[in-house]
Amino acid sequence: MQIMKKMSEQLKNHISKFTEISEDECNSITQFFTLQNYCKKETLLTEGQICNSFFFVVKGILRKFFIHEKGTEQTTEFAIENWWMTETFSYLNQSPSSFFIQAVEKTEVLVIARDSYDQMLKQYPVMEKYFRCIYQKAYAAAQMRIKFLYEHTREELYHHFRKSQPEFLQRVPQYLIASYLGFTPEYLSEIRKKSIS
Amino acid sequence: MQIMKKMSEQLKNHISKFTEISEDECNSITQFFTLQNYCKKETLLTEGQICNSFFFVVKGILRKFFIHEKGTEQTTEFAIENWWMTETFSYLNQSPSSFFIQAVEKTEVLVIARDSYDQMLKQYPVMEKYFRCIYQKAYAAAQMRIKFLYEHTREELYHHFRKSQPEFLQRVPQYLIASYLGFTPEYLSEIRKKSIS
Repeated sequence: MQIMKKMSEQLKNHISKFTEISEDECNSITQFFTLQNYCKKETLLTEGQICNSFFFVVKGILRKFFIHEKGTEQTTEFAIENWWMTETFSYLNQSPSSFFIQAVEKTEVLVIARDSYDQMLKQYPVMEKYFRCIYQKAYAAAQMRIKFLYEHTREELYHHFRKSQPEFLQRVPQYLIASYLGFTPEYLSEIRKKSIS
Repeated sequence: MQIMKKMSEQLKNHISKFTEISEDECNSITQFFTLQNYCKKETLLTEGQICNSFFFVVKGILRKFFIHEKGTEQTTEFAIENWWMTETFSYLNQSPSSFFIQAVEKTEVLVIARDSYDQMLKQYPVMEKYFRCIYQKAYAAAQMRIKFLYEHTREELYHHFRKSQPEFLQRVPQYLIASYLGFTPEYLSEIRKKSIS
């Protein structure tokens, strides 16, 4: 219970960045969530499953990836503390997921099931504004991501990532950074050496 | 006035797909918009400008693009009837736009300025749900787009596009399809010949 209170505080702080919410409202909203712990590399969603959950990272890191025809894993997204993650397309259309979602390290997550999410939005319209802002921000980032994918070589993407997210780069294993940038770990290692020397 | 009524009807029909809205509410909401007509190739937003408008396409097509270092135009997004378009990153952060927005053909647009958008959401919270749904859908599409960019060659993207959006492909000039897929128009022409023969 003590833990749930702490989590609720973290979620409340995040909601408060986007919209006004009372202590009472936030406590009631927390009831729609369950707290889940995942071990390093534990899978939250598998390709082909229908995604019925929306995840809010309390502590740790999640990643979203798919498996290329040739068998390699392509990471497309990370979520750290206070980020939301789901397979939005599968979640909305109730179609089989095209992605996996996995814990990068030991991760604590607030999970809300699809039905509860709809119920929560109905009962607490204040959350419509919150999620409108969350999705607006996520869409803006995706729009820039698409531009970057067209505009830069993957090596340039690495250097951009290194400059803009230095702490994140320290935190995530190198083979996952390689998987995000579409490199082999060996190639990433070569680029790193070049950029250090 | 007659025209504005017709436009308002179109917007209302679109809003009704996502949330309940009364005739009166919709009429009041329409007051926040202005109706604009753009000629073929007219620019709605230029790179470097701060984007302060949100566009709803009533009739016609908009496209978003940026200019590569080497000078070619890379189209990243199209919006046809009942689609919204803005430069979300610039709009949210009030930073110089990284993109241009241009009319592909003669286009009628409902425009809402940033201040009016905030005002409208404040006065009509029902619109929070509508825009939450719009952004959720747009984000799901962007997420799949990113997967496609990693997963497929540009030639495969063309064939996917051809199968999934045949009418759109007929409607948009070939040089813009090429600009969307990152081809030269000549290369697109070769692929088309190959796929016909």
